[in-house]
Amino acid sequence: MTESLIECVPNFSEGRDSARIDTICSAIAATPGVLVLNRTSDWDHHRSVITFAGRREPVVEAAVRAAREAARLIDLRQHRGVHPRVGALDVLPFVPLGSATLEDCATLAHAAGERISAELGIPVYFYGAAARVPERAALENVRRGQFEVLREEALQNPERAPDLGGPALHPSAGAVIVGARKILIAFNINLRTTDLSIARRIARSIRASSGGLPAVKALGVPLPSRSLVQVSMNLTDFTMTPLHVVYEAVEQLAAAERVEIAESELIGLLPRAALDAAFSHYLKLPGFGASCVIEDQIRPLQFATVTPGGIFLPGERIC
Amino acid sequence: MTESLIECVPNFSEGRDSARIDTICSAIAATPGVLVLNRTSDWDHHRSVITFAGRREPVVEAAVRAAREAARLIDLRQHRGVHPRVGALDVLPFVPLGSATLEDCATLAHAAGERISAELGIPVYFYGAAARVPERAALENVRRGQFEVLREEALQNPERAPDLGGPALHPSAGAVIVGARKILIAFNINLRTTDLSIARRIARSIRASSGGLPAVKALGVPLPSRSLVQVSMNLTDFTMTPLHVVYEAVEQLAAAERVEIAESELIGLLPRAALDAAFSHYLKLPGFGASCVIEDQIRPLQFATVTPGGIFLPGERIC
Repeated sequence: MTESLIECVPNFSEGRDSARIDTICSAIAATPGVLVLNRTSDWDHHRSVITFAGRREPVVEAAVRAAREAARLIDLRQHRGVHPRVGALDVLPFVPLGSATLEDCATLAHAAGERISAELGIPVYFYGAAARVPERAALENVRRGQFEVLREEALQNPERAPDLGGPALHPSAGAVIVGARKILIAFNINLRTTDLSIARRIARSIRASSGGLPAVKALGVPLPSRSLVQVSMNLTDFTMTPLHVVYEAVEQLAAAERVEIAESELIGLLPRAALDAAFSHYLKLPGFGASCVIEDQIRPLQFATVTPGGIFLPGERIC
Repeated sequence: MTESLIECVPNFSEGRDSARIDTICSAIAATPGVLVLNRTSDWDHHRSVITFAGRREPVVEAAVRAAREAARLIDLRQHRGVHPRVGALDVLPFVPLGSATLEDCATLAHAAGERISAELGIPVYFYGAAARVPERAALENVRRGQFEVLREEALQNPERAPDLGGPALHPSAGAVIVGARKILIAFNINLRTTDLSIARRIARSIRASSGGLPAVKALGVPLPSRSLVQVSMNLTDFTMTPLHVVYEAVEQLAAAERVEIAESELIGLLPRAALDAAFSHYLKLPGFGASCVIEDQIRPLQFATVTPGGIFLPGERIC
């Protein structure tokens, strides 16, 4: 992954009406130069996450198109889900892949935010590496009180007003929180109980902000449609706290509450290194990585030109 | 993996002298049209496994070159290891990848065997899908009693004589067991004890031939250089008995013997599906697969040509 690619992972406040999500997804996919990589929706969160990638300009263009469609289709005044949100398009992170940098992504976030504010009339907050105010680096600070509280506070308190547009939020589309961040793992563990206090206790035990695991954010939420509760997490640095460490911590805390893990969920995509690290851990295989996997090792052959003189990889000169 | 590729996984009776293994590996790598994918050596087994791949003819050529080098460098009369063997190049399996078939591989095994016998004067047994006698389908039947016994029995009992060459084995290089088989996982679990009887009991409990797990072969062997013992396994169909099922079975049997797993080892390469299945199991992530992994999902973009008109994957026509 040496080329400069940008990943974009917009979160929309619609997780139930698949026709609407189709429309948003199609608007992204129809943008020349981007590829949709994943789409995950959740009924209880009433939220969808679309992952797409491409070169810089196409990704910004697709992000603005997605914001436009979300504002056209979603009315936050009619929206209730278990996940906090302030916008129809709620969060819009740009993520560096390959040789792209976080600074590149902050620049793209600012460009996308300017367009969303100017062209669509939707106020914008900047977060993460694109934050213009230090405390807005943390997404949860921007989203505190979510749509219903923020639309009031933004009018009364300049410290809560949007970075662009505002101070009033858009009446139906709220605001978009646009940012730049490193790859994260959005990972949920569903517990076989309807006792929300258990998920909340576990979330509090493991999250970094209350002295738990570094680089872990966690919320306890109910999943009424499935009669379960969920520890909903963001792993903001899986090299610091690996996925399997988080899983085992929750497993142990749940066991102490005499509750079983029903299943886990990934929201969006997983970095391959997290897969390899978990496998290496569970099977006690030190040093396991892509170089141990057939499909990874033969890939050069599949793109190679084989001549009597040798194997030439893509881009190599055939003598 | 739609193209027809052949994997070849020769096992050599030399695991200690890295200069010799280098020489064999170089002979393979120098064959135009093949790519060396992996190399694993073990001191106690006194054995090395080299994995390489390519199109049909280059793979056969490299296999014959490897047999020649092994016979030149290895004298079985001086060789003692914990793993049974009958040849300097002991086992030479051809494995179908992509659209290649087991029948293709049997044909290549026969071609390689004919050349090894005719050009190098080393007798050949055929096993697996290349077996010419039904009971030789099972490698362990061919190798029974290994070099020291087989060289006697081959002279006395036509049922034990090589398929090609013979009846006498080569005095220093023994015989080569050439075959065709599906992908297997060679997986060893090392136990923190020097009590060989424990590894043997566990091996007997889990191997298919004594009523254990389907498609699992297992031996208990000592690892004197590391003061451990090993359950050395071949998983001949990991879709039938997954890697993690084998690991957990050994873990449980070892725990019952109050012995800890020190670590595991892969010999050669792992099929990606086995990685995904284990991850899905341990993290309770149903449906996990390559489509959930960033690097897999963005791969088309890395080989794509991006124009204002869209993204064109390799081989697609740019309008």
